[in-house]
Formats: sequence, structure tokens, C-alpha cells
Amino acid sequence: MIIDIPENSDFSIHNIPFGIFSTQNRSKRAGVAIGDHILDLVAVAKLGVFDFDSKVLEREDLNDFILLGKATTSKVRKDIQQWLQEDTSVLAGKPELFVLQSEAQMHMPVCVGDYTDFYSSIEHATNVGKMFRDPENALLPNWKHIPVGYHGRASSIVISGTPIHRPQGQTLPKDATTPVFGPSQRLDFELEMGFVVGKNTEMGESVSTDQAEEYIFGLVLFNDWSARDIQKWEYVPLGPFLAKNFASSISPWIVTLDALEPFRVQGPAQNPKVLPYLEYEGKKNYDIQLEVRIRPEGGEETLVCHSNFKYMYWNMAQQLAHHTINGCNVHVGDMMASGTISGQDEQSYGSMLELAWMGTKPITLNNGAERKFIHDGDTVTMRGYAQKDDIRVGFGEVATKVLPPK
Amino acid sequence: MIIDIPENSDFSIHNIPFGIFSTQNRSKRAGVAIGDHILDLVAVAKLGVFDFDSKVLEREDLNDFILLGKATTSKVRKDIQQWLQEDTSVLAGKPELFVLQSEAQMHMPVCVGDYTDFYSSIEHATNVGKMFRDPENALLPNWKHIPVGYHGRASSIVISGTPIHRPQGQTLPKDATTPVFGPSQRLDFELEMGFVVGKNTEMGESVSTDQAEEYIFGLVLFNDWSARDIQKWEYVPLGPFLAKNFASSISPWIVTLDALEPFRVQGPAQNPKVLPYLEYEGKKNYDIQLEVRIRPEGGEETLVCHSNFKYMYWNMAQQLAHHTINGCNVHVGDMMASGTISGQDEQSYGSMLELAWMGTKPITLNNGAERKFIHDGDTVTMRGYAQKDDIRVGFGEVATKVLPPK
Repeated sequence: MIIDIPENSDFSIHNIPFGIFSTQNRSKRAGVAIGDHILDLVAVAKLGVFDFDSKVLEREDLNDFILLGKATTSKVRKDIQQWLQEDTSVLAGKPELFVLQSEAQMHMPVCVGDYTDFYSSIEHATNVGKMFRDPENALLPNWKHIPVGYHGRASSIVISGTPIHRPQGQTLPKDATTPVFGPSQRLDFELEMGFVVGKNTEMGESVSTDQAEEYIFGLVLFNDWSARDIQKWEYVPLGPFLAKNFASSISPWIVTLDALEPFRVQGPAQNPKVLPYLEYEGKKNYDIQLEVRIRPEGGEETLVCHSNFKYMYWNMAQQLAHHTINGCNVHVGDMMASGTISGQDEQSYGSMLELAWMGTKPITLNNGAERKFIHDGDTVTMRGYAQKDDIRVGFGEVATKVLPPK
Repeated sequence: MIIDIPENSDFSIHNIPFGIFSTQNRSKRAGVAIGDHILDLVAVAKLGVFDFDSKVLEREDLNDFILLGKATTSKVRKDIQQWLQEDTSVLAGKPELFVLQSEAQMHMPVCVGDYTDFYSSIEHATNVGKMFRDPENALLPNWKHIPVGYHGRASSIVISGTPIHRPQGQTLPKDATTPVFGPSQRLDFELEMGFVVGKNTEMGESVSTDQAEEYIFGLVLFNDWSARDIQKWEYVPLGPFLAKNFASSISPWIVTLDALEPFRVQGPAQNPKVLPYLEYEGKKNYDIQLEVRIRPEGGEETLVCHSNFKYMYWNMAQQLAHHTINGCNVHVGDMMASGTISGQDEQSYGSMLELAWMGTKPITLNNGAERKFIHDGDTVTMRGYAQKDDIRVGFGEVATKVLPPK
């Protein structure tokens, strides 16, 4: 190995995720994470090792690189894996190709054209249904037939480390008939993963579940910030709007589907049987450990949730097949998030709404403070990794501090 | 006047709307419509008359031009108005500056980052509530407090003249409990207007109703295609998704707010009183005549709807103030549509759903054929114009032919 990789690094030789970084001396550009370092792909390209126009690596986002297609981007990843492992490779003895992650600034890895949020965890949908609708009929009639989703706001997706402001808005106080205005009192995270679309379609085209993986470049951690009190008042009949569109936060490194190949697992059985366009073959879920921690201002982190991406009822191939079955076109860089990833036990619920059960079971932080929802000054950090034997592929983190309204 | 303008042209000297066009000899570029012609702004720029970097006029969309700000874009419009009227102006005797609209291809005028659809006509919301929910309580409790809206799909907004494919999807047959798959049987138009955002905000910032017009560049006609049967099955609880995101169609010329100034009117009284951030002063509605015609394959047009933008309960300033009150950021080129514009009488309903009242009152076309919803081969055309005394400012049209599923 031509560079040291700390044991248990998310960014092992098996990973090689793509991102956009800059340093004091290097303008925004493409890189891959390896251990504690970033391999500068613009610098690598200057060695003449790539057989595509390397201008795409100098862009402010990865969209044009991804547009080259998986034949190219998968080869880049494989080549880098090999070069990093060979002491005599083209990358050897060239420390100027590497930058410490601690000395780099990360940026949005893609320009997100459209952002879609699904609602694909049966445990989450059931929990929400129990709280807000009918505990006896928590799942709505369409839920097991449709990977339910809605369009979110692309402009307010920000990179890990970007603080967000608590949203203000209308809420309906208990037993009132007239709304009041003020800062949200029920600011919440949602533990999700998002996939980045890797190939364009034309309007009128559909992507089958068989083809879907060709259209998925990779995944990031996704925190779908939510204001529960605003949501409750606004969401009938057209869905969440201001309760969600003030901010969503993502981790900076796109972990490719290639890197996640060893971690495929079978998804939950789907009963009733889905319509033919949603049927799929093979293992389409991924075993990815996920966790959420809250750090109050000046304090330390408390683990509040431990979940897994494998719990998803609807998989990404089904989501994409559904999204395009009506001919809706998708573009490289589009982001599609999973919906809150909750498991069956109470520690695996992916939102404060569920963890503290609508405020009835507050969570106690390590410093003794209680949380029903997120306070100003809190930093919410999500981490995720997949591990099988000695192969570890991680996502790093998405960490976001909450500030008062601007 | 240095160019002939037909009487009753939508593109009178009072209009001067902006768009993106190309011809066999001219690559995509910015232009303004005048009578039956287009004034080529790249060619005008070569005369050295603009005091900004005219590269922005050579882009494939108007975003960078709009980003220059209203001080610049309003002056360009005013200057062109003056030059067109003076026989000795810099544009005189230069026919090469003009292109016939009939010889040009129009393109999407802006790159739409995010698209939001409101639901701001009280007549439309009431009609839908009567049909799908409770006739006695047609309006939901939040409707008069919130300019209800949701995020739509930006990628599938297309320019007038682009045919669209009938969407396929899941629907729930009457009295069934299991959905079926197939082409939508209830394809519908929605008569709307959309405004184009003209100024960026940062996350955390809000735009007041007073400031809102600074952030609105101009308007287009907007056909929010809808599949009613898909919508009915999918939309609870997260709102419309596949029922809408297969296509929306817009007219090619952005008519500026400046050009619409003479047509301001008072909007409907709002009762109950709205929250302070939604209060506004002055006339914020616009008197714009709107109509919809259906032309079956090989047949002639039938007028099916005659409405007016002035009917909107919530105005654009309120929509934008609401959209940003939570700190949601907006960008130049974002599109915000009004929601279906229905009036009080039955001929003014802005969708087939309402015009044919859920299929119970079919519309008869001039050729004797009936329509409950839109058939394959039908072309739906929306037109709009404002007129006061001898001042006419029009939008041209958005015309879209419906093809079978691809």
C-alpha cells in the first residue's frame, strides 16, 4: 500500500468513494477518500493515466464525471484500487497527489437537479401511522403496493458541516382552530440514505428493476430535517412542504454501488405480491450499520439510534422503477432518499418523533439533559458503515449543528 | 416603429418578453418577441449598446441574464422599447437583427432548479374538495391560512410544442381493494400560470410580501398535466407524485412583471385575516384573460375554458413570502406555479376534472365528440393576454399534443 490506512477506516482500499474537495491551494475538484487522505484526481489526471477528457474532474461537481458512464467510472475506481496497492505504481513516491482530509474542505459532490424522498421503511410508516392516524390501521391502503414518495427541495440540500437554522412557520396549537406563528418547537432529524442517479433517461422512458442498478451511481448518508409541528398543520392534502424544505444534510463522499457489492442481503418478504413492474430478482438490500448521535452545545455525543439500511421494505431498484414507470425522466445527480430508516426495536427508530414517541418518552443524554426534539446548539451526527469479515466500507458522517432562526 | 406589429399581437411594444430561441443559422440564444418577429439579443449586443457582459445572452438559458438583476434587465427592456419606436435608433435599417417566429425554434427559457406548485384558487380547491372529500366541508382547515403548495418535478417541465406521453401507473378500480396497472384513463390538464424567480436568497433568509416583487422576474402559462386516477390512489399521505411528474408544459416567452404593471387589480378579500407575514398592501393580483382549447387529432379547436388570473385567492407575493418564511432558499430560474385557476362559473373551471365534473358532465367538442378527460392525439392549447384600453400584453400559447405511452 503506498499510503497508510488506519485500521477500521471507513475509507479502506475496498471503498474508494468520490467527492468534491478544495484546499487553500487547490480549487474545487474531484477526489477519492483513502484512509485519512484524499487522492486528488486532477493531480492524478496530469500523470496521463486516464483515457477520458479529465476536464470533468475540474468541475465544481461530479455530474459530468458520472455522465461518462459506469464503464469509465468503475474502471477509474478499480485502477485506483490497484495503483494504491502497488509500491511501484504510477502513484508511488508522489506525496503531492494526496491531501489530508483534515486540511480539506468538502463540498456538495453533485449538483442535484431533482430530489425525491421515499417513505420505504415499514417500521417508520407504521410508527407514524400509529401516532398521527389510526393505531389499528397504521399503514395506509396503498403503502404495500406503492413505494410512496414525494418531491423535496433540491436547493436546500447541504453538505455535512453546514449549520442550519431552525425554521419558523405556522403551527396549530392543541385544541386551537387558528394557527400561530413562531419557531418550530418540534425540530427533528430523519435517518436516511440517499442514492445519486448515475444515468439519464428521456421523458416517456421507464427503468425496470433489472436495469435499475445501472442508473444508480452510489449512496450517501442523508438527514432529512423535519419540523413536525409545521408538518402536522400543513401536510393535508398535498404533503410535506415547509416542514422539510428548509434543509437536508448529506455526507460528502459518494460510496459507489460497486463498493457495496459484498454487502447485499435479501430484503423483507413483500406480501401482498407487488405488481409485475415492481417485482425483482436477487438481493437488492444492503447491510449497512447506521447510527445517530446528538451532541449538545459544549457537551459530548450521546448515541440515540442504531439502525440498518437492510430493514428497508422497498429497495432502491423498486423505488427507481416506480419513479419512472409513468415516464418521468431522471438525470445524473438527482438524489433519491430512502425515507426514515427505522427497525423493529425502539433503539433503532430513525427519528426523535419515534424515539421519544411524540414527546412522551424523552431521551436522556449523557449529560443528564432530556430531549424530546432537537434544541438550538445541538449537533446531530449520522454515521454508517458496512462490514463483512475484514472488508469495511464506510460513509464517514453527516454532522449538522442547529442554530436559532436567522 | 421600425418593425411591423400586427394589430392585437400578444407581443406588442408594451410587452417585450424574453425567451431562448434558435434557427438554422443561429445557435440557442436570448431574444425578445416583437409582433411576429424575434429580436436577436446576441446580434443587438454586437452593436455595443449594452453595458453588461453580453456573454450571458449566448447561454442556453436566461438564468445568467436574470442574475444580472432587475436594474439591468428592466433597462434592457425599456431601451429596446425605445429603440424599436425610433426610426433613427441603433436598431433601424438592420433587418438581420430580426427573425420570424415561424422560422425559429423556441427552447426552455430558464434552467429550472426547483419547481413548486401552489393550490391558490379557492374555486378549484373547493371543487376538488367537493368531489373527493366532504361536499359540506370542501375546504380543508388550513386552506385559508396557508398558501398550500408542494414540490413538483423540475426535470419534466417542457416547452410548448413538445409532445408528451400518456403516463402509466397504478390505479384502484372502483370498489376494488387491490390496484391494477395500465395507462391513465383520466389524463387532465390544469390551467395555471407560473412565475420565474428573479433573485437568489440564502438559506435562513425570508422574503417579505413587500419585497417579493423584486424576486419575481416574470410569468409564463403553465399546464400542470395530471393523471387523476393515479393521483387518487397515491396521494395520501405525502401528496401528488407520479400523477404529476411525468410532464408540465410552459409557454416560451417570459412576460416580465414590468410589462404586467398596467394590469394590477385588487385580489379577493381574505377572511379570516391572515398571519402578519402574509399580510400585504396594494394590488397584487393581475387581470390576465386565460383560455383552454382542445383539438382532437385532425380536427379543429374547441374552446373549453375561459378563466382569469385575477381570481387567485393567494397572490404571488404571499406565495413567495410563505415559501421562504422557514428559511427555504430560492434561486433564479426556480418556477412557482399558481395551481389550477378556476373561476366561479362552470365555464371558467381550469381542469377537465371540474369542467366535466368527474366525468359526469362530458364536454362536447365542435366535431360532436365527447370528452371527460384528454384522449391520445388531442392537443391542449392554453392562451393568455392582458388588455386595458389599447394596451395589450400577451403570453402566446402553450400547446401540447398527447401521445400514447411510449
